[in-house]
Amino acid sequence: MGTGLEFVKGHGTQNDFVVLPDPDGVLDLTDTRVRALCDRSRGLGADGVLRAVRTGKVPDAPAGIDPDLWFMDYRNADGSIAEMCGNGVRVFARYLVDAGLAEPGELVVGTRAGERPVVAHADGSVTVHMGPATVFARSTATVGGTEFDGVAVDVGNPHLVCLTETAVERLDLSVPPGHDPVVFPHDVNVEFVNVLGEGSLRMRVHERGVGETRSCGTGTVAVTAAWLHLTGRDTGRAEVHVPGGQVTVVVGDRVSTLTGPAELVARGELDLAWWAAA
Amino acid sequence: MGTGLEFVKGHGTQNDFVVLPDPDGVLDLTDTRVRALCDRSRGLGADGVLRAVRTGKVPDAPAGIDPDLWFMDYRNADGSIAEMCGNGVRVFARYLVDAGLAEPGELVVGTRAGERPVVAHADGSVTVHMGPATVFARSTATVGGTEFDGVAVDVGNPHLVCLTETAVERLDLSVPPGHDPVVFPHDVNVEFVNVLGEGSLRMRVHERGVGETRSCGTGTVAVTAAWLHLTGRDTGRAEVHVPGGQVTVVVGDRVSTLTGPAELVARGELDLAWWAAA
Repeated sequence: MGTGLEFVKGHGTQNDFVVLPDPDGVLDLTDTRVRALCDRSRGLGADGVLRAVRTGKVPDAPAGIDPDLWFMDYRNADGSIAEMCGNGVRVFARYLVDAGLAEPGELVVGTRAGERPVVAHADGSVTVHMGPATVFARSTATVGGTEFDGVAVDVGNPHLVCLTETAVERLDLSVPPGHDPVVFPHDVNVEFVNVLGEGSLRMRVHERGVGETRSCGTGTVAVTAAWLHLTGRDTGRAEVHVPGGQVTVVVGDRVSTLTGPAELVARGELDLAWWAAA
Repeated sequence: MGTGLEFVKGHGTQNDFVVLPDPDGVLDLTDTRVRALCDRSRGLGADGVLRAVRTGKVPDAPAGIDPDLWFMDYRNADGSIAEMCGNGVRVFARYLVDAGLAEPGELVVGTRAGERPVVAHADGSVTVHMGPATVFARSTATVGGTEFDGVAVDVGNPHLVCLTETAVERLDLSVPPGHDPVVFPHDVNVEFVNVLGEGSLRMRVHERGVGETRSCGTGTVAVTAAWLHLTGRDTGRAEVHVPGGQVTVVVGDRVSTLTGPAELVARGELDLAWWAAA
């Protein structure tokens, strides 16, 4: 097979990524290659690619980021660029520590959304700062003809959180839940939540433009903020169970944090002939 | 990450596999680990696992196989054992040659269906002996209320091949095509075929118990045999286009061969902590 191109495969609550180390920014990472890499039959398979490159070597990095920081160049499976990903940045931080490129503890990662502080814990979990969560409206979602009361939350992207007594496992999320386009002119991520106990929530999520997913970082923050709001509080914490695992969310005054697992599954080399043809 | 467990990932016409080298048969490959490995979110992701082990180290290998031969211990993604896989054995042979465990050219692979001769070509493609294809009945398949005339072919497993003027791209194979349970008491793999020209066929396949797949080795043999039969011949060859690529089938008197690509995508090591927890 010959000497290939280094990669690491990992996932955060079953949102999975291929990390490509590229400190000097020399990799010719075309959209076509991202798609080939993420293709689950003819490639390695992933929800996205995380290129690890020094910020100073990224010509289109946002201004103001320390050029020596590791930059998470995030690409969706379709080749498009995304600014941030709460699950991806956990895998990215875990990779940096595992590869000896960062010390465990507090570190800062460069992203297209700016510098992002994270904490890589000794147990492999990672805490990520997620920015503020703002409740801004009441609205409703419709699933299979049934209407659910919801709370609209802005976490940088729009969410509609519906706390319900109906067991979330029983909902059919194979089609997008109905929502009010006046409240959400740019579509919306919809979460359905069962309160399991004080500070313990179970959710399922339908992501706009994607469908149901096993995990949604901003969704877990929105869900915690909505639950706090409905119980008369602005700040607090919750364990949030998603189909892909469990995370801990702390909602504060002006900032929220998400702590969750990041697992590295494998490391190795991509076949060079395969890469060249991709 | 530490020293891990070696793997190679590859695919044959987009039917993808994780190869695990285990010459001495010491790997504790439980059903649970196969499922974790094949899981496309929390594992490496594949349609199946191919353990590469010396036949003499496989306690339950069929009698009569040379103990020094490499044995393809094939597991489906759900952990179950399968006897043979036309796409898997190509990837397996390509791996053996690539890893220096076999010389290019003719070689013999041990499988649960017995010794299987293959030819590993210099261009990376592999020819596999597929056994005889026997046309045994006429029958029909039904898709979306439309009936298609078909030919029943036995290639070790049952197939119903429908040559049609309707472009196969337009068929809805999201539900199993209807078939006659008297002709096929154990369900059936159904192929729909357009003849593109002499010796050039395009097919889609619905595999029993699985759904539509991008490739089916025995299906391409069945399709070629059916086309030859309907054009008054018992033997001949065809290029068969499947959604995952293209293969060449030669149907002879008592034997048929399938020649197709086998691509290795990546090699590396599974994380030992991940494996231990899997």
